[in-house]
Order: sequence, then C-alpha cells, then structure tokens
Amino acid sequence: MEKIGDLVIDNGDVEEDNCFKDGSICGYDSLHQLLRANLQPHHFQEVSRVLLGLNRGRPLGQIALSESVKSLSSQNDFDLQGFSFCADKESLREPRVVRVGLIQNSIAIPTTAPLLDQKKAIFEKLKPIIDAAGASGVNLLCLQEAWMMPFAFCTREKRWCEFSEPIDGESTKFLQEFAKKYNMVIVSPILERDVNHGETLWNTAVVIGNHGNVIGKHRKNHIPRVGDFNESTYYMEGNTGHPVFETAYGKIAINICYGRHHPLNWLAFGLNGAEIVFNPSATVGELSEPMWPIEARNAAIANSYFVGSINRVGTEVFPNPFTSGDGKPQHADFGHFYGSSHFSAPDASCTPSLSRYKDGLLITDMDLNLCRQFKDKWGFRMTARYELYAEMLANYLKPDFQPQVISDPSLQKKSY
Amino acid sequence: MEKIGDLVIDNGDVEEDNCFKDGSICGYDSLHQLLRANLQPHHFQEVSRVLLGLNRGRPLGQIALSESVKSLSSQNDFDLQGFSFCADKESLREPRVVRVGLIQNSIAIPTTAPLLDQKKAIFEKLKPIIDAAGASGVNLLCLQEAWMMPFAFCTREKRWCEFSEPIDGESTKFLQEFAKKYNMVIVSPILERDVNHGETLWNTAVVIGNHGNVIGKHRKNHIPRVGDFNESTYYMEGNTGHPVFETAYGKIAINICYGRHHPLNWLAFGLNGAEIVFNPSATVGELSEPMWPIEARNAAIANSYFVGSINRVGTEVFPNPFTSGDGKPQHADFGHFYGSSHFSAPDASCTPSLSRYKDGLLITDMDLNLCRQFKDKWGFRMTARYELYAEMLANYLKPDFQPQVISDPSLQKKSY
Repeated sequence: MEKIGDLVIDNGDVEEDNCFKDGSICGYDSLHQLLRANLQPHHFQEVSRVLLGLNRGRPLGQIALSESVKSLSSQNDFDLQGFSFCADKESLREPRVVRVGLIQNSIAIPTTAPLLDQKKAIFEKLKPIIDAAGASGVNLLCLQEAWMMPFAFCTREKRWCEFSEPIDGESTKFLQEFAKKYNMVIVSPILERDVNHGETLWNTAVVIGNHGNVIGKHRKNHIPRVGDFNESTYYMEGNTGHPVFETAYGKIAINICYGRHHPLNWLAFGLNGAEIVFNPSATVGELSEPMWPIEARNAAIANSYFVGSINRVGTEVFPNPFTSGDGKPQHADFGHFYGSSHFSAPDASCTPSLSRYKDGLLITDMDLNLCRQFKDKWGFRMTARYELYAEMLANYLKPDFQPQVISDPSLQKKSY
Repeated sequence: MEKIGDLVIDNGDVEEDNCFKDGSICGYDSLHQLLRANLQPHHFQEVSRVLLGLNRGRPLGQIALSESVKSLSSQNDFDLQGFSFCADKESLREPRVVRVGLIQNSIAIPTTAPLLDQKKAIFEKLKPIIDAAGASGVNLLCLQEAWMMPFAFCTREKRWCEFSEPIDGESTKFLQEFAKKYNMVIVSPILERDVNHGETLWNTAVVIGNHGNVIGKHRKNHIPRVGDFNESTYYMEGNTGHPVFETAYGKIAINICYGRHHPLNWLAFGLNGAEIVFNPSATVGELSEPMWPIEARNAAIANSYFVGSINRVGTEVFPNPFTSGDGKPQHADFGHFYGSSHFSAPDASCTPSLSRYKDGLLITDMDLNLCRQFKDKWGFRMTARYELYAEMLANYLKPDFQPQVISDPSLQKKSY
C-alpha cells in the first residue's frame, strides 16, 4: 500500500480522497477528528495527553459559542471551534484572559477571473467569518498570509503583483471597519507596495488597533527559496526587525510563514516580550505537513508564549502551468494547502486543528499570565547563557570562521 | 473521567496501570504501538504520515536483526527495534550509511544497596544490551545521561556525588573494551569528577573512539533549576563550548538533557557541523512528555541533522524523602522516567519510540548525506540572516537593553 503524492482537491472543495493506491479511503477532516472517531475514549484521552499535552494538568476547556454564530458557520460552511487555555491564579496580578481568533480560508473564485473581482470575492467570503469572530467577542484576530489574493508566488509571473497594496490600502480600510465595530485588534497579512521606497514589494502584516487605527507593520524576515516558491522573486527581506506590538489586549508579534523554520526568529520576538506570536502561513504537501505540528509548539515551549498558526486551505489552480525543478511534469497548482490552523501554549499544550479542507474560524481564550508562569517554572531564560551564543554568532559571521571540531587523531583526513 | 498524576511503577517493572479514576485501563508500551493496535491499517498509515513523517516520501524501513540478537533481547527482557532512514543517491558522493544505536535502561538494584554494588549491577545489566548493539554492527552507540548511577539529583543529598568518576575512570574503561571489540564509537554520559580543577563536578559525555581511544568530552551547557531538579546543586555549567566530534562514522555532538529546551544550543552544534546530535536525558512526568516528541524533531528539522533522543526508564526510589516546593507532600521518588527513546531526521521524519517502561536498544541506519540534501532543499542557512541575530543577542546582553516595542498610542500605560 503506497501513498499517492497530492490529493486532488479544487479550491477547498472536499472530494472523496482515495489517497491509497489500493482504493481504501482515508477521508478525514483533521487528525484530531480521525483519532477521536476511531479510538476508544480512554485511548483517545491518553493519545491526546501525549500529542496535545494537558493544560495545567487537564484537558483543554471548550468555550460555548452562540447559536447565531453557529448558524453563520453552517450557513457559510466554515469550520468553527472554540477552546480555552487556563493559567494559575496569581496573588498580585489579575488574570489577563483574552479571546483570540484565527481565520483560514480558500480563495473565492478562480484565478482566471479579473483581479479586482477576485479580491472583492475574498472580501465577501470573509465578511461572515469576521462577523462570527466579532460577535463572539474576539479581542485579537489574525488572518492568513497574503489573505487578499491567491498565493501566486509559485508561478513566477509578475502580473500577480497587481494585488499589492499600500499599508493604508483597501484591505486595511475593509478591516478597519470591523476593528471599530467589534473593538477588535486585527492582524492583516498582505502583499505590500511601498510607494515611498521605489514601489518596492514586501510581505507585510498590518496591525490594526481596536479603534481602527493602524498601530504599525511588520515585514517578513525570512523568504523561502524552495521548490516552486522562490518568493524573493516577488518581495524583499523584511527591514522591520522583530517588533512586538503592545495592543489593548496584550503584546503580540507576527512571524510570517517560512520564518517558522528559523528558531532565531521566534527567539527574537520572545526577547522583545511577545505574549502571542501569530504565524500566518501558506504551505502545502507532504513535506511540510509533518513539520506543521512541531515548529509552532516548539516555539511556544522554548519562548514561553502562545503561538497562533494559520494556513490557508484548498488548491489554487493558475492559468499557466509552471515547473518545480524536480523532474516532475509542469503543473498548474502547487498542491493542497492543508489548513490545520491551531494554537500552541507555553505549557506545551495545544488545541486541536481546524479542518484540512474547509474555511474555518478558531476561537481560543488564553490567560496571558501563563507566559510568565512558565518562564518562572522552567527557567529557560535564567539558564540560557545568551553570552555564549552572541559570541558564537559573531564568530560565525566571519568568512574565516572555523567550526569547533575535535577529530579522532586515528582518522585519515577525508573530505565529503 | 480524570487523569491521575503519575503511574505507580517500580524501577521499570510494568504494572497494570490504572491510569484513569474510573478504573478503565490504558496500559500500553508506546504511543506508536497503541495507535497501531487500535486503528485500522489505512488510518494508522495516515496518522503515521502526519505524526512520524515520511522519509523521502515513504514510510521508514525496518532492518532485519539476527536471531542471536533477538534472543539476547528476550532473555534479558529489553525492547529491541530497528529502522532505516534513506537518502537520495548522489552523483559525486557515495552514500554514507551508518548504523546508530541508543540504549535506555532502568537502574539495576535498589538505591539503598552499597554504591559500588549499584554501579556494578548497572554494568552487568548493560553488558548484553551493548553486546546486542555490537553484534548488530552498530557503528555509533550512545547511552543515557549519567547512566552509571541513579538520577539522584532530585534528593539534594551530596552522598550521590560518590558516583562521579574522572574521564578515564571505570565506566570509561568498561566501555573501551566494547568499543575495541566491536569497532564501535561509544558516547558515555557520566557524572564527571575533574581532579585537575579542584575536584569540580560536571555532567559530561565522554566520546570513545572505535579503537577504544578517548576522543574527547563535552560538558552539559544548560542546567535545570526546575522543581525537584536544581542540578546546579551538583555540578557546574559546561565550559567546553559546542564541540563536534569527527569520528570514523561521521560528525557527532551531544546536547545533554535540559539543553534540548534551548534552540540556541541545538543551533550551535549545527553551525559547528554536526550530522548526528545525541540528547541523552533523564526526564519524567506529564509536563515533559508532551514536549519530548517536539523539541528533538524541531532541532533535526531546523538544523538539518539527525537527533538521537534517549530517556531512562523506571521509577527510582530513594531512602530519604524530599520535597518539590509545589505544596505536594514529601516523596521518595521523582516520578516515572518514561523512556521513549527515538531518532529524528532532517526531513522531519522520525522513528517510533522505544517502550515507556522497559530497557531498550534502538538501532537505526541513516545515510548522513541526507543532512546536506536537506540543507540544499530547504535553504534554511541561506535564508537565516545570522547578522540580525548576532546583533540582537549582543544588544540583549546589555543591562539597559530596550526591547523593540511599538505601543498603540491610544493605550494608557499599564504595568503587568
């Protein structure tokens, strides 16, 4: 029984996914749902303990969402889930519970439609999902990477750059209304056109405050040069450092997409004081899916903050086929964006993931006091010996850097 | 249905573990075995794909072990498993397949026995397991942290320091014979007594070459100050940097125990060129078990090397009870060391884990060429922007460091 490469799924619609050559079916919406449906309850509980962790020694809480929000979800066919992480009560600080939302979605109409229609269709599609977040009292909401366009960076065609917008462009204006209406901070990852610097493009997250004001922006620090995606064809490496945005609901930062592979990037947001780091992403396929549940959780553990991971869903088919440089034939899509958005907590627990196929809204309550509690408990910062690493990196930058290697003297010299 | 804290298990013997208050049973040897036994094959395959990853697009291979080795395993009641990671064939380099072994074990006799007897009993216990590794053609073998003693650092009693040895002490001599006999590199993590520096204690890995020669040592960089374990009571923070040992079978490094929580520690071994990093550990309980499958895999992914994770097994009961500072009553053991040793690979795949309860030997073939192949594929080093982080860390070290925070101007200043 062998696995076939990518499932064939069109713009987020679920097909009967015959994913094994022998014809057996493994259709399922999320790993969590598959395990819950197929294991006995006490086995599922034990598997959950190891895979999802326990929050303060207990399974995660679920939060009750209103009937009107549930009906928005069923009418508009998006996945809706709500959980809560808790923290210890402290004597000298009040709990700082915030309600945080993540939205994942497929594009709305084919990539062959006029670009303006595509963007507007995504706006229309998002409205009921953002309304559901706002009506649920979400304080902080993050959308997926480059949410206002198909993820066309695999094509190498420059026409998709037309989707880019300035920081105060129509996507920002669209979201500012929701921010004001619902008193909600919104993180909006867009393709940015920087007219003040020669019309340069950046992959940028705009942070909109709960009064509709733009608090600031962060530009993606690490750009993939992988397979179909050499995104440095499209935009520049970020020049905004590792800012933490102090909002009405806590200190947040944004590690955009491929930056999740860089532990130093996660570290820097932590050293600047982030309590929640969002990772708006667009990623596909068999290689990255096993990394998806690992990297965000590791970052949450190592840096004692919450992480909100978002991945778009669906398969985006482009008009002109393109190649991967891997010997496979040309193709018109880069594979299935597998969604699976989730939250990770500093105590090593995490929420179940949203659907692998459907649009979705994940709402989670978290007491930000948990961050400091776990800094104190595990003592990672106290034991970090940063001076060793500042020196190591400074040396490593030198072209004549010599790694610290102790060779067995009985070895004949080899070169690999 | 609520989870009871720790399972009551004595020195590695498996009891019927009634781990739920309602009396239902969830006895199982490893997560992998639980899932395999309780899911349909096609569901298990899909769960494995996401949880364990696929190696070069396929499930892991199994390696055939000889009948004589299998009978050593059954006669001496240790878990025995063998897997293989593969890599692409290259045109200009031969494959560099090495066979690597990890040993996990409980202590052999009670901690109330004379110390010399305890150490000798562990030696006797390990002999057939090391023989099984040698007879299977293992090239590189790593034992668990402080393998020659109970993990007594929770007690705060200084008598256990008597277990310490110099680099050329009896534990090293014991293993040098096996190294010569089987032409095998052995990594031996011990409690080291450094007689040349005022009899200081260190938590040290001795690297013994395949001719029985001592190639060098590495001392644990990061010391836990967590709950029962403030190990800085016992030994000093390492002063050996991040050495990579160039052995007859590849470049290896050792990240001892709590160092696995420090992404910078993993990074430094990678920057020095490690192809396999061992993480000999001793860890217990519900908090660290959900972190165990995360941190090592993240390190393997982020640094494009193999990781061998080892944790001891069993519950070690000490003569005098001690406390945790968490309000719980005094206790004579620190909980159950849950074993679960495993390998992680740079392509995000990993092996199933050894037993949570039994001694074990895990043997895995790996082509070290996979490391460079994944450096090339994912491009993490090319996109790492180390100069940003060298500067960040240098600034962070300053007592007057100011984090990069952008505050919403509409906020009233708060202090948490």
